Amino acid sequence: MRYALGIDLGGTKIAAALVAETGQVCTPVRTCPTRAHDGPSEILDDIASLARTVLADAKNLPAPCAIGLGSAGVIDPERGTVISATDAITDWTGTRLADGIAERLADVLPAITVQVENDVDAHAAGEAWKGAAAGAHCAAMIAVGTGVGGAVILDGEPLRSRNHFAGEIGHLPIPGADDIACTCGITGHLEALGAGPSQVRVYHARGGDRSLTTAIDVHRAAGAGDELAAQVIADSARAVGTAVAALVTVLDPDVVVIGGGMLGAGPTWFDPMVAAARAQLVPLVRDIPIVPATLGSHAAIVGAARAAFIASERTAND
Amino acid sequence: MRYALGIDLGGTKIAAALVAETGQVCTPVRTCPTRAHDGPSEILDDIASLARTVLADAKNLPAPCAIGLGSAGVIDPERGTVISATDAITDWTGTRLADGIAERLADVLPAITVQVENDVDAHAAGEAWKGAAAGAHCAAMIAVGTGVGGAVILDGEPLRSRNHFAGEIGHLPIPGADDIACTCGITGHLEALGAGPSQVRVYHARGGDRSLTTAIDVHRAAGAGDELAAQVIADSARAVGTAVAALVTVLDPDVVVIGGGMLGAGPTWFDPMVAAARAQLVPLVRDIPIVPATLGSHAAIVGAARAAFIASERTAND
Repeated sequence: MRYALGIDLGGTKIAAALVAETGQVCTPVRTCPTRAHDGPSEILDDIASLARTVLADAKNLPAPCAIGLGSAGVIDPERGTVISATDAITDWTGTRLADGIAERLADVLPAITVQVENDVDAHAAGEAWKGAAAGAHCAAMIAVGTGVGGAVILDGEPLRSRNHFAGEIGHLPIPGADDIACTCGITGHLEALGAGPSQVRVYHARGGDRSLTTAIDVHRAAGAGDELAAQVIADSARAVGTAVAALVTVLDPDVVVIGGGMLGAGPTWFDPMVAAARAQLVPLVRDIPIVPATLGSHAAIVGAARAAFIASERTAND
Repeated sequence: MRYALGIDLGGTKIAAALVAETGQVCTPVRTCPTRAHDGPSEILDDIASLARTVLADAKNLPAPCAIGLGSAGVIDPERGTVISATDAITDWTGTRLADGIAERLADVLPAITVQVENDVDAHAAGEAWKGAAAGAHCAAMIAVGTGVGGAVILDGEPLRSRNHFAGEIGHLPIPGADDIACTCGITGHLEALGAGPSQVRVYHARGGDRSLTTAIDVHRAAGAGDELAAQVIADSARAVGTAVAALVTVLDPDVVVIGGGMLGAGPTWFDPMVAAARAQLVPLVRDIPIVPATLGSHAAIVGAARAAFIASERTAND
């Protein structure tokens, strides 16, 4: 049995565990806060420190054959570097993640392969391995939370593309978002209407109660009879459903997995989102499974480990 | 040197030629009309007859190792059958194309591999082999004519998908088409706004001159100062450009190829289409090459031959 160290690096915390090639998480999931504004070097130090904790937890198991890391930002998986990123993590663009981690662990894991993936790609790879899309040849994912991310998984791996941008569905032009600015500055994108904070912004822009400041507040108000809030949520659900229809029209995947914090809103958001998708799909593809993610917070750790196993095999075959 | 017989079956004519594995078309392109409403068996007879003509043209060359056919309709390339089709060809759904052709040519090409692809997939495969997208790892195509078709080519082959529907971009939900019915019956799809006949319908619906009956008429009127016609063309160009942006956001391909009869409209349609695409793309992918198809009417013959070579190699390796 081989093992890989899976690491999930998010904007607020880092999580890691040892994963067997069966997909089983074999050690406790260890976490530490992400020092998002202290600089990349400090974050790499924390990752290495967390990895040592996991290795200590796994002292009775064989050493990992590879390390997998899912990270925020547009990632070059061949070089293990950050191509571009928002300022959620200071100075993240340009960070040499694979080399930085390998160097810091060279004493305990000499010459180890470190495979880096975008965090949503890692999340989706986990779901396509052991979660809601297990066994799919092609799985598409939309993750709706503070932003809208996406991923396309082909035969277990994120779709490799020219600018490492494939699946970035948050920037899909979408009907109904025409006059709303996205976080990227362009109007009309899915994220401008679909993401949690976008729902709050749209609710305020349409004259809603300014004392409500989170998507959870808006959903609660809708439940209590606030018709404007209900309309904003319906528009958001429809926008994400339209993006599902777009993904299915372009890719015809085996399954579309929906992840991210918006899942917490439950059927009042999920059901109309699915209905909007199906209403826009031709009969041949209308029955596409559209399912919630099932691996929860472990998905990116498991998916990063999957990527590490695949990279390790590729290295061995070269 | 190996050769394959490439065949392009459209709604109005069938075309065929022998193609070398260099991509060169080695015989005259032979054509005959498609007897679209006489039944599938008659069409298969005509294809076989046309194939025999090409074989006679190529009597001094080695026999083809395989046959490739691009056909209208949703095609199952593993079985060589028509999964679904419009009534442009009567009773086309369910036709066993690969078997029907192989049986009819068994005396001259016994046990030959017949690889069938969707016609736009074949067109795109040709462009990705020897045309506008030559050498691309991932190429996306949009073909705008009497309908709007599309294709995704990965490493030379059409993207294989669950329902053989990948790339059917005509049914992409698109801003601005919200109230216009698509040929599939659903409102809001690209084809409802982007295709040639759609431009005429939209022009009439907005009060345009009813004596204009073709997209060419509308483009000519726009050139002569008809502002409504110019607006309809601008909306169509913007819709197709938005679909390009959607393709790039989902797939991040190396290149997007635009084909189909609408190319004949020239820069008054092409340039605003490209501008609309770039305006909706984030900087990382904004410079994506968006180029016209270059192989012209030979593209589907060449692409079908490419698919035949690949299928033949796969059969040999099994």
